Order: sequence, then structure tokens, then C-alpha cells
Amino acid sequence: MAHRRFELITLGTGAALPARGRYPTAQLLTVHEEPYLIDCGEGTQERLRAVGANFSRIGHIFISHLHGDHYLGLMGLISSMHLMGRTRTLLVHGPPPLQEIIEVQLRASRTFLRYQLEFRPLEPVSGRMAWQDERVTVTLLALRHRIPCTGFLFEESQALRPLRKDCLPLIPTHMRARIKEGEDLVQSDGSVTANAVLTHEPPPPRRYAYCSDTAYAPELLSYLKEVDLLYHEATFTRQLARRAKETMHSTAAEAATMARDAGARRLLLGHFSSRYKSTDELLSEAQAIYPDAEVSEEGAVYSINERTIV
Amino acid sequence: MAHRRFELITLGTGAALPARGRYPTAQLLTVHEEPYLIDCGEGTQERLRAVGANFSRIGHIFISHLHGDHYLGLMGLISSMHLMGRTRTLLVHGPPPLQEIIEVQLRASRTFLRYQLEFRPLEPVSGRMAWQDERVTVTLLALRHRIPCTGFLFEESQALRPLRKDCLPLIPTHMRARIKEGEDLVQSDGSVTANAVLTHEPPPPRRYAYCSDTAYAPELLSYLKEVDLLYHEATFTRQLARRAKETMHSTAAEAATMARDAGARRLLLGHFSSRYKSTDELLSEAQAIYPDAEVSEEGAVYSINERTIV
Repeated sequence: MAHRRFELITLGTGAALPARGRYPTAQLLTVHEEPYLIDCGEGTQERLRAVGANFSRIGHIFISHLHGDHYLGLMGLISSMHLMGRTRTLLVHGPPPLQEIIEVQLRASRTFLRYQLEFRPLEPVSGRMAWQDERVTVTLLALRHRIPCTGFLFEESQALRPLRKDCLPLIPTHMRARIKEGEDLVQSDGSVTANAVLTHEPPPPRRYAYCSDTAYAPELLSYLKEVDLLYHEATFTRQLARRAKETMHSTAAEAATMARDAGARRLLLGHFSSRYKSTDELLSEAQAIYPDAEVSEEGAVYSINERTIV
Repeated sequence: MAHRRFELITLGTGAALPARGRYPTAQLLTVHEEPYLIDCGEGTQERLRAVGANFSRIGHIFISHLHGDHYLGLMGLISSMHLMGRTRTLLVHGPPPLQEIIEVQLRASRTFLRYQLEFRPLEPVSGRMAWQDERVTVTLLALRHRIPCTGFLFEESQALRPLRKDCLPLIPTHMRARIKEGEDLVQSDGSVTANAVLTHEPPPPRRYAYCSDTAYAPELLSYLKEVDLLYHEATFTRQLARRAKETMHSTAAEAATMARDAGARRLLLGHFSSRYKSTDELLSEAQAIYPDAEVSEEGAVYSINERTIV
């Protein structure tokens, strides 16, 4: 069975005030060969170029909330896609006021996009499905922040059931697609062979959860259960817990607690306040609770391999 | 007499599509010790940091027009100034729709700026004064572009007249300020000494003209006469004259013609289309008409020294 990509690139790991070589938030999640952009801080188009991403291939942009460090790169990207001759529809999913923000700017510049820009308003309601295609289902997470803010849970679509090699001679070619989808084999004489005999268990769908920006929100744990990769903001260390509470951000300890309690398989920290020159303290605070916590880095790639069920 | 700065930093020299290491347009003009920001493309705050500019000192931002490559960095800069605790008023001068663009975004992010942001709408009327303070007068230039677009002429205020050293004993201390301003000296016995005897000619006020984006606009020449520094866009080479006309941009030859016909003392080309890997061709085309033409570079500093009148 061909390897199918499920891969995250963190394009920016900074918080509201850009500094110390950290860029504002943007991430590129590639599911199979399809790239989905999550948030789009100022300069995202430049970061996409820096990692060699072909952004004309991006079909969807998901914006979590309307603080500038999560969306101010959107107009520039929309405009560059236009100038580069894009014709494919672009879907922008985001908080309702984003539509006016885009429209007022297109109007002021008298830009008539060569492609269709379809806006899909998002309300922060946990569990609501925001998007589904043949590769992925995107479910919303209601984050706790100063303004309406949605996290995103990307779940890979169920893979087809691989046929057992030794059974191949038994299965007529024209039946194979249906057997891969789980049907039993009914022969012309009426005899039935159970699907489980003919196929392997497919790898379980991989899941990625994006939680930024948010205060500690344990009500989300049920959605995050055993998620393959959890990106959770960790703006502050525990020492600034009060500041985290006021600004509705998380400490590294809170991010790690979420990962531990969800049984997440991997935790990636990000959205670091510009006051931290180094992320060492944030990381060690998280690792005390979730030993394998990792710090996201600008332009780094995090691949989630397919897990085999035996 | 102390040296007074009149200095331009070109922060970005690219056109609409960022590429080839060129950033979108932004310039920092320092007159004496006061920095004025001209245009503010995406990423300007990062470019300001890269050249070590303290952007909390910027009191004025002038936006020429509402194509994204000239203003999409404004919201990020406004937001960073806020987060850094700015209290000083910021004046933003720009096309009227910019006010709504700023307000809709402040509203969406529920940002209540800690400082006063004063918006000054600009209409593209050549010769109209947009701003005056003790250092500088800013006059508008109506550029020819697809949407309303204003250039800016920055003229240094007239310097005080330096006192002649040999005359110092003749001038009572309390009279000096007035003599520097050009008054004659009236002694207590009624005798008069002409100001010209007591003072030197001050250096002539320096002038900087910013012309981007624009088609060839010879009607501006009277405003640009013997300007000390002319920045003129040169998006295309002559080979693409038709494209220049359609998009209302200038060729390098047109920029040079403007500089030559205005008798500009120095010409700086910029706003290069991303199709040009190298600017060599643009430069040589301009130099055939205006031999000292220069190509602006990212982050480069162009100082205009005081000229002495003898």
C-alpha cells in the first residue's frame, strides 16, 4: 500500500508581537497530496515560499480568529494567488467578520479576482463539521479566548481495506473496488466470503488537532482523545499564569496537561510570547507533565506515519 | 552648524508580487531626527526591525494608495505599536477608504488602542499641503494610476541663518534667535545692521519626491524641479511599454526622463516587477537617459547632505 502523507509544517511559532526570528502563526497540513492552510499571519506567503510550498495548490484556508497574528497575511496571499493567474476556487473558512474585511479591501483596491473566493463562516461550536472531502473531515473546537476562536480537528478519511495477496486470485477484477470498501464477496453460485477473510484491517485514520489561541479548556478532551498530533499553544510559563488567565492563553504546563489527559500521541507546543528568548523553560515545564513534548520550529516538518493494525 | 539628517531607507523595492528577495514597498525618511514612514507593504514591521529602526518613534505614516503591496503591513504595525505600549499619537495619512479598513479590523479583533490613531484622508491633488511641522512640509502629487494614488514631496523647513563668527561680539545674546530668523539688528541708538552682514546664507531646504505607483506623468515636473532626490517607480523595461501603459506603471526610461526633465539631482529607481531577476537592464535603460540613475536596494540608506551656498 502506497505511503500517504499526513504532514504538518509550522510556518510561524510566535505570538502577537513578532520578534526573535519567530513569525506569526500559520501552518500547512498536507493530507495525502492536498495542502490545507491553517491561520495566515503577516508574511505567510513569504514563509510558504521559504519552505518551497506551491501555494497555488492550496484549496482551503482555515482562520481560527481575528487577532492580527493569525490572519493579517491573508489579503496578501489572496492577492498573490490572483496575480499568479489562479483559476481554481479558494475556500476561506473563518469568523463571520472576516468576510467584510476581505471585501472592503478588494473593493478599495478595485481587485476583481480571477478565481472564485468562497467564504465559509465559522461559529465556534465544538463538534460541528466545517468541511469534508475524500481525504479529510474538519471538525471545530470551541476554544476559550478573548474573541470568538475556533480550533480545528483534522481527521483523515477511513482508508480502503487492503486486499490480502493470497486472496487476489479469488476476487474478480471488477469486484475489487467494492471489496476494498468492505463488502463481502458474493460468487455467482450464491456462496459468500466474508470481507475480513479477503482484506487486511486498514491503518486507522490519523488525526491532527490545532488548539490556538486558548485558555486551558478541558471540556475539549473528549474530542482530542488519543489524537495523533496535538498542537497546543503555550504562550507563557507557569510563572506568568495570571497573565495567561487575563489574556486567555495557556501556560506550557496547561498545554502538557491537555496532551496527557487526552492521551495524545504527540504534543507540539507553539505561540510563544516574544519575552522568551529561548523556549527551554517552556519545554521543560511541559516535559515535567508530558515527557515527549516538543517545541515547534519555524518551517519544521512533522510527519505522522501510518500506524499498522496487526 | 550641526549636521542635520535627511536620509531615506528603502525597505522594499518589489512590485505587487513579492519575489526574488524583494519586499513590497515601504520607505523610512528621516528629517533631522524625525522618521516618517512612506507606504507600508506586508512585512514592513519586520523590515524596520532588520534595519534597526525604532518604530515607536514613527509619528506619521503616509500611504500612497490601496494596492496591497503598499499598505498591507499597516495593521500589523499599528497592532505592534499598541502591544509595545505606545502612548504617542500616530497620524496615518491615506486614501479615505483606508479609515474603514483600519476600523473594521480593530473592531473584529476588539482592539482598543492605547494611543490615539488620527486618520487624515488624502485626495490626490497636486500641490495640496498634507502636513507641516517644524522640520518638514509634505505636499501631494496626483499620480496616474488605476486607483487614486498620491505621491509625496517632502521639503525640509528653511534652516535658521548661521551667525557669522566675527559678528558674534556685536550681537546681544537675547537678540541672537531673531537674527538667525532673518531680522536686522537694531541697536539701542537706533542704528541698523542688515541681517546679511551678520549671517551666512543657510543651506537651501532639501527636497525628496516619492512617485510610486504611476504612469509617466510629465504634468508633475513643475513640482519636481531640481529636487534633491527623486524616487520614481520603474516597474518595467521599455520592452514592456504596452504592459506599463495598461497597468499604469512606468518604464525605467520614463522614470529617467522625468528625472532628466525635472533636473533632479539624484534618481532612485524602484518597484521592480518580479519578472526581473536582475535590475541590470532596468538600470542601463535609465542611465542612457539619466546617467547617474541608481537602483534602490532593500534596506539601503540614501543620505542627502546639506548643500552649502557660498
